[in-house]
Amino acid sequence: MSDPSDHPSAVRTIEWRDGSVLMIDQRKLPLVEEYVTCSTWEDVAEAIRTMVIRGAPAIGVAAAMGMALAARAARELPRDGFTRALQDATKGLFSTRPTAVNLGWALAEMEQVWRDQALAPKAAAEAMERLALQIYEDDVASCRSIGAYGAELITVEEPVILTHCNAGALATAGYGTALGVVRAVFARRPRLRVFVDETRPFLQGARLTAWEMLHEGIPADLITDSMAGYFISKGMVTHVVVGADRIAANGDAANKIGTYTVSVLAKEHDVPFYVAAPLSTVDFAIPDGSHIPIEERDEAEVTHIAGSRVAPEGVRVRNPAFDVTPARNITAIITDRGVVLPPFGAGLRGLAAEPLSKEGDPCVR
Amino acid sequence: MSDPSDHPSAVRTIEWRDGSVLMIDQRKLPLVEEYVTCSTWEDVAEAIRTMVIRGAPAIGVAAAMGMALAARAARELPRDGFTRALQDATKGLFSTRPTAVNLGWALAEMEQVWRDQALAPKAAAEAMERLALQIYEDDVASCRSIGAYGAELITVEEPVILTHCNAGALATAGYGTALGVVRAVFARRPRLRVFVDETRPFLQGARLTAWEMLHEGIPADLITDSMAGYFISKGMVTHVVVGADRIAANGDAANKIGTYTVSVLAKEHDVPFYVAAPLSTVDFAIPDGSHIPIEERDEAEVTHIAGSRVAPEGVRVRNPAFDVTPARNITAIITDRGVVLPPFGAGLRGLAAEPLSKEGDPCVR
Repeated sequence: MSDPSDHPSAVRTIEWRDGSVLMIDQRKLPLVEEYVTCSTWEDVAEAIRTMVIRGAPAIGVAAAMGMALAARAARELPRDGFTRALQDATKGLFSTRPTAVNLGWALAEMEQVWRDQALAPKAAAEAMERLALQIYEDDVASCRSIGAYGAELITVEEPVILTHCNAGALATAGYGTALGVVRAVFARRPRLRVFVDETRPFLQGARLTAWEMLHEGIPADLITDSMAGYFISKGMVTHVVVGADRIAANGDAANKIGTYTVSVLAKEHDVPFYVAAPLSTVDFAIPDGSHIPIEERDEAEVTHIAGSRVAPEGVRVRNPAFDVTPARNITAIITDRGVVLPPFGAGLRGLAAEPLSKEGDPCVR
Repeated sequence: MSDPSDHPSAVRTIEWRDGSVLMIDQRKLPLVEEYVTCSTWEDVAEAIRTMVIRGAPAIGVAAAMGMALAARAARELPRDGFTRALQDATKGLFSTRPTAVNLGWALAEMEQVWRDQALAPKAAAEAMERLALQIYEDDVASCRSIGAYGAELITVEEPVILTHCNAGALATAGYGTALGVVRAVFARRPRLRVFVDETRPFLQGARLTAWEMLHEGIPADLITDSMAGYFISKGMVTHVVVGADRIAANGDAANKIGTYTVSVLAKEHDVPFYVAAPLSTVDFAIPDGSHIPIEERDEAEVTHIAGSRVAPEGVRVRNPAFDVTPARNITAIITDRGVVLPPFGAGLRGLAAEPLSKEGDPCVR
C-alpha cells in the first residue's frame, strides 16, 4: 500500500502487503533492521504481545490489520462461521496488552463492519481491509497534525526537549506523536536539541528514539532515566514532551513507566510538561487515571538486558510497564484536533464534540 | 588481617594480605565472585578507576591500603626518594575519582605519617600499614554505628525502605551505610521489605544491592530506576535511605546519579528521605553542593550493558556519575556519631566538634 520512499519519516513501522502484514522487529533495533511477516491474526497478536511492534497508535493499526487478515481468512465461510471467527480474533487481539486504549478502539471500529448484517462476509472482508488502511493513513495524518500544533506551542529559539520512551514513527503508523512534535519543531527551530531517556526496562529510548533522531539528523543526547533530574534541575531542559497510551476523561495520562517521575521533576522546576496524543487516545468512559489497567510484564525484562543476566539468580522483581501522570502535572495535551489546556475535562469533551474541519487551524482551548 | 568468618556481613569487599590488597571484583558481581590482587599502588589506582572497587568509604580504605603498598615498596629508599615516591602515589591515587571525599580524606590521613620527619622510611611504612588497617576497622565500626542510629529512627512495624545504588557492605569495609541501616532495622523489624533501584548505568543496585539482600535473606524487590515514582506514589514506600559520596557543610549531599530524583519524589509524597554516611563524608571546606565536582564517565557505560551494545552507533551520550541532593530535600543525615536534623550546618559542625564518646548513645540533634 505505501511506498517507503514517500513515507513521512523514512522509518517503516508497519505495512499492509496484500494479505499479510509486514512489521519492523522493534526488539532487534537498532542493531538489526529485520522485518517480520504476519500472515494470520494470531501472528499479529503474538507480535503485539512480544513487542515486535509497540506504541499505542501502532498497536491500534496492527490490531486493525490483524482483523483484516482474520476476515480475509474467513471470507468464504457462511455468516455464522465468519462471525465466530471474527469474535475469536477480536478476543485474541484484545487480550494482548491491556493499557493502550487504541487497541480496543481499533477493534471496535472493525467490529462495526463485521457486525453489519447488510454485508456478506466477502464484502465485509474487503471493507475491513479498506478500513484498516484508512486507520493507518489517518494515524499518519493525526501525527502530522499533532506536530503542527506542538510547533505552535514551542517557540523559543533554542528549545531543548526531553522525551521518555518512544512516541515516534515507530510507535505510530509514521511521524510520531511526541516525536512528531520534535520533528515539526526541528523544521522551524534548527537549533533544537533533544534529551532521550533510555527508558528501562525495554530501552525504547536508547534503541528506538535515539535511532530515529540519528536517522533525521536531530541533535540528541542519550541519558539514563536517572539523569533526567540532573539535567532538568540544571535548567538545561526547556520542555518535556511525551506520548500517552490512554488518557482518562479528566486528563490523567497513562504512559511508559517513568513518565510520572519526569512529570514530578518538570513541575518541581517549572518546565512545561506536554502530552502529545491523538484524541482517540482519550477514554471518555473512565473518569480518571485510577481506572486505567496497568500491565505488569515479565521479570526477565528487568533481570536480563540484551540477553545477558545482570541481576542475581533468585532476586524478586516488580515490572509495571506504565504509570499514570495526574492531570495536575500536565501543562497541556497536544492532540490532532488542537491543544487542550487545564482543566482538561471540558476541553477534551469540546474537541471530541466538534465536527472535523479540513483546515486544521491550530486551536487552543 | 581479617578472618572472613568473623566479617560482619559475610561479604568481603577488601582485605590487606601482608603486602598485597585483595578486592572482590565488583564489575563481575553477581554472576562471578572473583578476587583481584593488587601488589602496587598503581594496581590499586587502576582498580578504583575501573570500579573493581567503588563506594565512597571503600574507596577511602582502598586508597589508604594503596599508600601502605607504596610505602612498603619505597621503605629502603633514602628519605628524599621515599617522600617523592609517596607524593607520586598520592597524586596518582587522588586523580582516580573526583567526587568522593573519602579518597582525599584517607590520603591526607596517610600523608600525616609519611610527612613526619621523625619517622625513618621503614618505621613510617610500618605505621602507614597500621593506619590503613585502623581506617578499615574504623569504617566497619562507623557503619555499625550508623546502622544503630538508623534503627532508632525507623520504628514502624512494617517498614518498606527504598534505596538507590549500593551503599552496602560492598561500598564500605563491611556492613554498609544505607544498607547498614537496612541490616540494623531488619534485625529488629523482620517484616522489613526493601525496594532496590537497579541504578543505571552501572547497575550497582541490580548487581550489588540485590546480591547483598539475597545473601542476608532480607526480602527485596528489584525495580528499574523509573519505577521508584510509581511505588512511592502508591504509598508503598515508608522510608528512603541512601548513602553519600560527599556532603557539603550545609548538608547538600552528592550521591549516585538518580538520588536527586528520588529525593524529589520522596518530598512530593511526604516520605522521609535519609542520607546515611560517616561524619568523615562531610567536607566542611565547601559551603554547599555547588562546589562538589561531578565526574562524567565513559559513554560506553550508557551505550553498552553487560558487554552488549544497546544504543545505535554514533549516538551522543551524557554520563554524569553523581548528582547533588539539596539539604532541603533531606529529612535527616544519619552519621556514625548521631543523627542530624535540619538545619544541618550547625548540627554537623557540632558533631564534628564533640569529643568521641566510646558509648555511642544515639544522639539526635
